[in-house]
Amino acid sequence: MTELWRGSLLESRHTGHAVICDDTGQIVRAWGDPEAVIYPRSSCKMIQALPLVTSGAADKYGLDTEHLALACASHNGAAIHTDRVRAWIDQLGLVDQDFRCGPQIPDDRDAMYGLIRTHEQPCQFHNNCSGKHSGFLTLAAHMGAGPDYVEIDHPVQQAALAAFEETTGETSPTYGIDGCSAPNFATTLHGLARAMAWFASAADRSDRQSIAAERLARAMMLHPELVAGEGRACTELMRAMDGRAAIKTGAEGVFIAIIPEKRLGVAVKIADGTTRAAECAISAILVGLGVLEADHPATRRFMNAPILNRRGIDTGIIKPAEQLV
Amino acid sequence: MTELWRGSLLESRHTGHAVICDDTGQIVRAWGDPEAVIYPRSSCKMIQALPLVTSGAADKYGLDTEHLALACASHNGAAIHTDRVRAWIDQLGLVDQDFRCGPQIPDDRDAMYGLIRTHEQPCQFHNNCSGKHSGFLTLAAHMGAGPDYVEIDHPVQQAALAAFEETTGETSPTYGIDGCSAPNFATTLHGLARAMAWFASAADRSDRQSIAAERLARAMMLHPELVAGEGRACTELMRAMDGRAAIKTGAEGVFIAIIPEKRLGVAVKIADGTTRAAECAISAILVGLGVLEADHPATRRFMNAPILNRRGIDTGIIKPAEQLV
Repeated sequence: MTELWRGSLLESRHTGHAVICDDTGQIVRAWGDPEAVIYPRSSCKMIQALPLVTSGAADKYGLDTEHLALACASHNGAAIHTDRVRAWIDQLGLVDQDFRCGPQIPDDRDAMYGLIRTHEQPCQFHNNCSGKHSGFLTLAAHMGAGPDYVEIDHPVQQAALAAFEETTGETSPTYGIDGCSAPNFATTLHGLARAMAWFASAADRSDRQSIAAERLARAMMLHPELVAGEGRACTELMRAMDGRAAIKTGAEGVFIAIIPEKRLGVAVKIADGTTRAAECAISAILVGLGVLEADHPATRRFMNAPILNRRGIDTGIIKPAEQLV
Repeated sequence: MTELWRGSLLESRHTGHAVICDDTGQIVRAWGDPEAVIYPRSSCKMIQALPLVTSGAADKYGLDTEHLALACASHNGAAIHTDRVRAWIDQLGLVDQDFRCGPQIPDDRDAMYGLIRTHEQPCQFHNNCSGKHSGFLTLAAHMGAGPDYVEIDHPVQQAALAAFEETTGETSPTYGIDGCSAPNFATTLHGLARAMAWFASAADRSDRQSIAAERLARAMMLHPELVAGEGRACTELMRAMDGRAAIKTGAEGVFIAIIPEKRLGVAVKIADGTTRAAECAISAILVGLGVLEADHPATRRFMNAPILNRRGIDTGIIKPAEQLV
């Protein structure tokens, strides 16, 4: 899928799988094995957020597009994220200890340096998944369900599983425990791309699930800075596409795209789990589909990333493999 | 070479190449393609340090085993590293600006937090390669050569190239610019393993190069904490082997081992460049060769690394592929 060149030598290479799927669930184009079973990790947060909207919980608690974008986010823990998450759970009458995602040192430099300078420990709302967990907590409150909302048999996770199987069109064969302690359901690349094509074509349909899907994808495109953070691929590439696609990264080399104007969904998995390669591959596919400009600065940064060393010298490049372009 | 399992699913996998070589230069065992051409990156710092010793510069400037270990190090930028590097270049009558490695935020937590709390910028002596560059500066001073010691045609780099080709037994086909701006010469996996077997058998020979090689490998084994830092694979695994092997990581998934008691050298390259896989693979090979105990805590940490999430829950494991054990 992608190659790292240093001088005249191919130094490292990443293989993987990718699928472009249309709104009938059919594969338009595939690389590698479209039937490979993977964990989508955080790339499927918009699926996990579906029951929050379809249940009526989002409307009952007055969630707006910012809340919905955060529910689909893997954020940097910057103030723009944590301030909103704190206000959200405060409004639910909950506190940091009600989260089950665990504390995480924020990736956002200002937030991280601020904690270090004041000798503070990070909280659970700093966790990159705290928006998703706020969504889980909101749904649990709406359902009147118990506090251990990341347990596999909790109604919140069972609702997430139902949404996952409905949108992927597959019975999930297994699940793993994610970095944030929530179950992460497995599917094929094809299933994940099918789900994203279903999101991409949601505006064509008027059922409750589709209306919820359209709201979630639109919220992501409206607030790219809330879905990840300054400098991150999701944020910068969504800004570059300016509402033409919603995209989302997942740990271990996963990336998805929802492209409403083409009714297409994309799923990428780098076999070795490397983020730099997933960012490069999804960029190349989005350029190939004509929704991302090849010469946009964000594209150059993630699709043809120069490798600058500690003196700023250009020592190499990460670029898509020939098969991908 | 290695696999990441989460729940019952193989989530990510790393392929690569590895060679075990004996002191006659013959391959004892190989995985993948032993003739694959790679950049050794920082794994070959002991080769780059050979001219420092063979030239007489190390003795002229009174370098001890700590200096030699630092010359072979990719250190964490902890105080134990930077204090020694500063004293070394001070003794040469040089200052931070004489380095050509560039500044780097130290990986060592205390050092990093200290800089952030005092609003200081990192210096070049914080660069993980500052020990190697101190060696280059010492050799340049001894040679009376110019200040731009990372240029390919500088006598220091030409001496490094000669040592590299002599020990690998190959003509280097190309070079790349490393993260620290020094040239990094390419070789085959076989060539890199041959060089390490030559280091491993250096005590059998009495030529000046071999005496220097034996001093450098011994210095690494004497001061594992200077070669990397607390918690790092090089340091923890060398401590676990207690003088039975010198090992060294390199960027983009490289790892080498020098095993004097067996006169063997090992070279590993993970094709996708991932450090976690290189650490796992070299651990498995060292266990297989009987120089690292399988049940040592350091071995368990790097060879069978549990993946703990942000609440400390065990969610998976990184382990060697079957072919490797």
